[in-house]
Amino acid sequence: MQTIQALPKHEVKDLTLATQGFNQINWALQDMPVLASIRNRFKVEQPFKGLRISACGHLTKELAALAITMQAGGADAVVIASNPLSTQDDVAASLVAHYGISTFGFAGETVDTFKHHVEIALNHNPNVIMDDGGDLVAAVLQQKPELGKTLMGSTEETTAGITRLKSLDKQGLLPWPAIGVNESKTKHLFDNRYGTGQSTLDGIFRACNILLSGKTVVVVGYGWCGRGVALRARGMGANVIVCEVDHMKALEAVMEGYRVMPIAEAAPLGDLFITITSNKHAIDAQHFSLMKDQAILCNAGHFNWEYNHDALVEQSVAVTEPRRFVQACKQADGRTLYSLCEGRLVNLIAAEGHPSSVMDMSFSNQALGVEYLVQNYGKLPNNMLTLPYELDYKIAQLKLEGLGIGIDAMTPAMEAYMASWSEGTQ
Amino acid sequence: MQTIQALPKHEVKDLTLATQGFNQINWALQDMPVLASIRNRFKVEQPFKGLRISACGHLTKELAALAITMQAGGADAVVIASNPLSTQDDVAASLVAHYGISTFGFAGETVDTFKHHVEIALNHNPNVIMDDGGDLVAAVLQQKPELGKTLMGSTEETTAGITRLKSLDKQGLLPWPAIGVNESKTKHLFDNRYGTGQSTLDGIFRACNILLSGKTVVVVGYGWCGRGVALRARGMGANVIVCEVDHMKALEAVMEGYRVMPIAEAAPLGDLFITITSNKHAIDAQHFSLMKDQAILCNAGHFNWEYNHDALVEQSVAVTEPRRFVQACKQADGRTLYSLCEGRLVNLIAAEGHPSSVMDMSFSNQALGVEYLVQNYGKLPNNMLTLPYELDYKIAQLKLEGLGIGIDAMTPAMEAYMASWSEGTQ
Amino acid sequence: MQTIQALPKHEVKDLTLATQGFNQINWALQDMPVLASIRNRFKVEQPFKGLRISACGHLTKELAALAITMQAGGADAVVIASNPLSTQDDVAASLVAHYGISTFGFAGETVDTFKHHVEIALNHNPNVIMDDGGDLVAAVLQQKPELGKTLMGSTEETTAGITRLKSLDKQGLLPWPAIGVNESKTKHLFDNRYGTGQSTLDGIFRACNILLSGKTVVVVGYGWCGRGVALRARGMGANVIVCEVDHMKALEAVMEGYRVMPIAEAAPLGDLFITITSNKHAIDAQHFSLMKDQAILCNAGHFNWEYNHDALVEQSVAVTEPRRFVQACKQADGRTLYSLCEGRLVNLIAAEGHPSSVMDMSFSNQALGVEYLVQNYGKLPNNMLTLPYELDYKIAQLKLEGLGIGIDAMTPAMEAYMASWSEGTQ
Amino acid sequence: MQTIQALPKHEVKDLTLATQGFNQINWALQDMPVLASIRNRFKVEQPFKGLRISACGHLTKELAALAITMQAGGADAVVIASNPLSTQDDVAASLVAHYGISTFGFAGETVDTFKHHVEIALNHNPNVIMDDGGDLVAAVLQQKPELGKTLMGSTEETTAGITRLKSLDKQGLLPWPAIGVNESKTKHLFDNRYGTGQSTLDGIFRACNILLSGKTVVVVGYGWCGRGVALRARGMGANVIVCEVDHMKALEAVMEGYRVMPIAEAAPLGDLFITITSNKHAIDAQHFSLMKDQAILCNAGHFNWEYNHDALVEQSVAVTEPRRFVQACKQADGRTLYSLCEGRLVNLIAAEGHPSSVMDMSFSNQALGVEYLVQNYGKLPNNMLTLPYELDYKIAQLKLEGLGIGIDAMTPAMEAYMASWSEGTQ
Repeated sequence: MQTIQALPKHEVKDLTLATQGFNQINWALQDMPVLASIRNRFKVEQPFKGLRISACGHLTKELAALAITMQAGGADAVVIASNPLSTQDDVAASLVAHYGISTFGFAGETVDTFKHHVEIALNHNPNVIMDDGGDLVAAVLQQKPELGKTLMGSTEETTAGITRLKSLDKQGLLPWPAIGVNESKTKHLFDNRYGTGQSTLDGIFRACNILLSGKTVVVVGYGWCGRGVALRARGMGANVIVCEVDHMKALEAVMEGYRVMPIAEAAPLGDLFITITSNKHAIDAQHFSLMKDQAILCNAGHFNWEYNHDALVEQSVAVTEPRRFVQACKQADGRTLYSLCEGRLVNLIAAEGHPSSVMDMSFSNQALGVEYLVQNYGKLPNNMLTLPYELDYKIAQLKLEGLGIGIDAMTPAMEAYMASWSEGTQ
Repeated sequence: MQTIQALPKHEVKDLTLATQGFNQINWALQDMPVLASIRNRFKVEQPFKGLRISACGHLTKELAALAITMQAGGADAVVIASNPLSTQDDVAASLVAHYGISTFGFAGETVDTFKHHVEIALNHNPNVIMDDGGDLVAAVLQQKPELGKTLMGSTEETTAGITRLKSLDKQGLLPWPAIGVNESKTKHLFDNRYGTGQSTLDGIFRACNILLSGKTVVVVGYGWCGRGVALRARGMGANVIVCEVDHMKALEAVMEGYRVMPIAEAAPLGDLFITITSNKHAIDAQHFSLMKDQAILCNAGHFNWEYNHDALVEQSVAVTEPRRFVQACKQADGRTLYSLCEGRLVNLIAAEGHPSSVMDMSFSNQALGVEYLVQNYGKLPNNMLTLPYELDYKIAQLKLEGLGIGIDAMTPAMEAYMASWSEGTQ
Repeated sequence: MQTIQALPKHEVKDLTLATQGFNQINWALQDMPVLASIRNRFKVEQPFKGLRISACGHLTKELAALAITMQAGGADAVVIASNPLSTQDDVAASLVAHYGISTFGFAGETVDTFKHHVEIALNHNPNVIMDDGGDLVAAVLQQKPELGKTLMGSTEETTAGITRLKSLDKQGLLPWPAIGVNESKTKHLFDNRYGTGQSTLDGIFRACNILLSGKTVVVVGYGWCGRGVALRARGMGANVIVCEVDHMKALEAVMEGYRVMPIAEAAPLGDLFITITSNKHAIDAQHFSLMKDQAILCNAGHFNWEYNHDALVEQSVAVTEPRRFVQACKQADGRTLYSLCEGRLVNLIAAEGHPSSVMDMSFSNQALGVEYLVQNYGKLPNNMLTLPYELDYKIAQLKLEGLGIGIDAMTPAMEAYMASWSEGTQ
Repeated sequence: MQTIQALPKHEVKDLTLATQGFNQINWALQDMPVLASIRNRFKVEQPFKGLRISACGHLTKELAALAITMQAGGADAVVIASNPLSTQDDVAASLVAHYGISTFGFAGETVDTFKHHVEIALNHNPNVIMDDGGDLVAAVLQQKPELGKTLMGSTEETTAGITRLKSLDKQGLLPWPAIGVNESKTKHLFDNRYGTGQSTLDGIFRACNILLSGKTVVVVGYGWCGRGVALRARGMGANVIVCEVDHMKALEAVMEGYRVMPIAEAAPLGDLFITITSNKHAIDAQHFSLMKDQAILCNAGHFNWEYNHDALVEQSVAVTEPRRFVQACKQADGRTLYSLCEGRLVNLIAAEGHPSSVMDMSFSNQALGVEYLVQNYGKLPNNMLTLPYELDYKIAQLKLEGLGIGIDAMTPAMEAYMASWSEGTQ
């Protein structure tokens, strides 16, 4: 490993962390075989040659692997942190020092700093935007709408961002094609379930070191992420209650053996509350007063308002920090409620986010999504789009291969049978 | 309970079983609140008044509940068994004797008898067909194509039947709109997973009384049914291996912690093999020779060829029946392989099929599907269609209500938030 | 298979069922390799030559395998049913017709008939008693105490029976050594957990065909049987509540993620109640009024008073039988509660009892227990004893071997290390 | 919080960490209600007044809670770290600065330093020893045997230490009564299962951030700790293989649905190996060559030789540290094997050890064990003893109470029934 001569523009915490970050990135790379195969192809095919890409995401070792992949494909990339607290400073340093990628973000940055980095990302005049939560896209529309005319498209990682894109799409405001990466099966079936499931508990363990066994855990939101969290919480011995506003999902939760009830009923029962809704104030001010002394709240959704952390702090008579990432919110009635990571993503802030192995698939969707936008520039409608299923499926094939797992192929007779209709009961 | 005076046309095993069947139907009805609410509405609205319906399905107490519901809506219904072995003879008797519904089928009927009943169903000149596996639809096309001109549409219960419909649709051969009931979420997410999962094990328990704990169970096919079976087999202490030809599904199975491998590798490992593929010969002649002595094979898919039962019997030096539903197939090398229910649906033949509670949702989709076809006669394309999601969702709502489970509704603020895009990181 | 010439004394339902029973016994034998190896040794060593044995147990195909094993060892055995409802009549017939074993019991016998059979067993003047629930032992003490002087000992299968033996032992009333078979690890760790866990659900499925997924199941009693039932109920998708009077066991249940509460709190929550306590009236008259309409009660414990079935029937305004094994108990307030198998063992009455594979271990303990009593006649104290651990352990070894599973042995270095104390932190 | 004036003798890393450590201890205390109730009683009763106690243990926030409890009981305590790497330096600092407890240990100390601390502990001339792994006890016998004459007894936390005590006991070398704390049910049923199960995964997550979902995890040793680890690994989506040398435990593992095989067969299959055996070299030099590239090894047993880390390092061509706690051992054939925490306890070194809630019970056993030794001084045999069950049970009662969970008591009628033997089948 050698640092590069001329450093790109950047704002990171400490370049002396670069070596450690370089090792971390390598640690990630070895568990990301699908992205590696894409990167190897990109090196040869140079699909992004001459193109500027602005990427906004959690600045983790896995995002670094994606950035390196885009760079390998010829992109001139600017990478900014999508969250004030989630940046891995060593990784950011290595991106700058070893890979020469313009990187902006550090753990503990203010929202103003974040917004400044968004500006930088826009001023990069990107041909393609890679977004995580929809902030870059919203900023273009709000601050630099002229970019919309030249953008080839954008990709979006999260359910939260896709909600915003769908809203834009519905209102006819989307000026370019946007790939909802989260719509890919190799994204949401894996990252959201197995990634969020594990990393959320990991974040909670690191923040609190509490025993899950025997605890009543209230999972608010039973989308793909929520079911991952519920599954893993149960797998660690917790008794899980699910809150949900969608009857179909709620019914699935019932059938999986979880208790299902409104949050107002769950509030006095829970030892630990985890929000993962893509919505706002799913746990609100009035629910805090119902909770048990020493109840813990945390969030695994994109934005920091899924439970109303601000209201909680406001209605507290004192707020202290007994452990890193833990705010003890003393209530007037003597109870203490604990809020983790100020309501921001517990898995990315108290822990390291999803393991590389599952981000391999998510970020392969990102890479192929951008390539698809570029290859089909001018041909795609200005809507929220999904990556073609054959690309999605290809990622699954490569992943299984990377895991060394073989499966059967249908025989020609099976193929013929599946395409026929005439054979029946005999 | 009183038997009716003038019995309808019928061919059932023994009318003296009618009282027992009547009790069985009542047992089912009490666990089918969604269908009850539909039936109550049908009684008033009479959506099928003057219409003839031919229904083909497993002649269970739950199908009886559906038939009664259609009758309540004014339909002139003929019901035939969809499988030579799955008929519950007491239920069939009650349908005739207490409900006056023309019913044809008995457990152990020959395929010729089955085909004769299909003819009867066609000769009923139905306005709507309710199918299970696609045999009625295929018979119309093959034997009485002129019916296609007057049929308002058909509904189809199973994945196997939908495969056939999709093939017809693709080839442009579908002469009416066909609702793929299995495509409804309230069908496949519940019936296929929780219904098939439980009833398949139930069938195996009744047929074999073997301990699942510690057994290696090979589940062939990891669709919604297969994952239900795998989940429940694991839940009973089995070590589960999954075989699958689709990489996406195979990868999910891996991530759920199952071993995944080709059937040829799984064959020597399994103590029990369960096929649930909608395909043909997923376990074929060459695999039997790889299996352990005393390995057991059974099928939970629609047709009796998912594992090649015929080939197994053929290559056996002797076939005996040590227990009801169990064929002991002695191999030339001394091993004995056990084949359950002659390769037909183990859950419907050795046990009673899915519990009423989950068929409540599936058959509510059937009832609403037929109503939708009738209400929209002339307006729907001649394709494989899905029940509109609002009807599907309504079933979930009614089911939760029936279970006495309440959930939160989104507040107006939440609704507004979900419809907006401008709010971002702060 | 050939029936014997001179039939022994017997009282069974129907000797024409013998062929079917013979097949059933063979079905069991093939899954009982440990007992087979004991039987083969017994044939040679004839440990019971000239001895009379009276055995009381559930007259299942697996008990038949045990009886045959004792017979192979030279015993002159009388076998009687331990429960009025659990006898498998075909098996009993085959024991008589094919094996020439004096067998008394039929499904549906009265308690008077049962008591008459007990008398027959005592009049056999056994040298050893094999008991199941303690009725034979109690009958000796109450009706024929002089037998106590000549009895070499007795074995007892169940927790319920061991409770009685412990009481006798404590009061100094035990006139012979009694092996508590249930105390063997290869008995209670396996039979009670995996056997009872599966067979109880099997019995419920056969009796009711209800969906467990999404149901609230209240397991009353968290001993080895109870935890098996709880584990399997959860494995089938139920939400499990545990009731227990022992704080240690209750705490374990909490840590396994179950809700734990008094029965009075659980009563209004449960859809299904399963007692498995070895106690009496764990669910009593006052709890029935708290239960939901359509709640189902069943028992997997030895005696039929774990929930107060008699009180339930008494306080009902009507009792009907909508399905076999199901009593619908109409309450004055309109609710219906369902009681399965009249409060007797649901797994042995509605289903077939534990699978052969696990009874292999339990009954091997029985066989070795009797052999141990005989071999050590005169040397053992008149107490409740446990089979020596090396015999218990040997059964585990043979079972693993029978399953074809090999494990490591400790190396001499490991053995030496385990026997040392001097090596410490370095 | 106020630091004390005259600091006791100590050797800790950095006293400026004391405030953070004080908060950590408080974090622990709030989840340890049983120990709190004992501490409150000790304050009043002063059972250890005038007694010197030397305690050796993992210097965690929970051990601090125990030390404070002993101090509250009047003890003059010296606390030393039981492991060179597991000390939480902030906690150690607070014990010195806020509690005035003589504390010796820091993370990263050498084995020589550890041995020096052992000497200090012996030179404290303790009346009672609290041990963790048996090193203090062994040191007394090897270095200062005269202490044996005056010691009132010792307590031992771990299976590893109990193995050593049993060996001493068997050889007649134990000069005082020793309480095997691990023998208490409220210790091994909870700490070993739910504590080790969670904290081991926690350590692995922190060290590696790998996805467990879909991984093949080999758990070597299926004692209480091993089954906790296996259960939780499966709960996180891993496919678990168990290696065990005891047939009884192996058979249980089979019945729980795990694959069971010798380590030489498991070696090429595992992605992650976890040893938890109390034995030595359960994974040895010859097994490393069989493993997959990138396989990870870690240990959750007491000593650092459960897998032969030293041999692994020795046979490596290069050893680097890509992440903290991770040693990458490059093999001559190109494979890299990862060894975590140099083979020492991954849960205590990479993470924080078991959560306070479960250590509450373990350390309550310690506190009551010492009290029992003191109260019964002179009356107990010089053997390895178990805490009387009524004390053990009392801890379970208090714990349930602390969790706010009530259970039923047996009615007098139930008590009478359980004490009787005469009531039988009716």
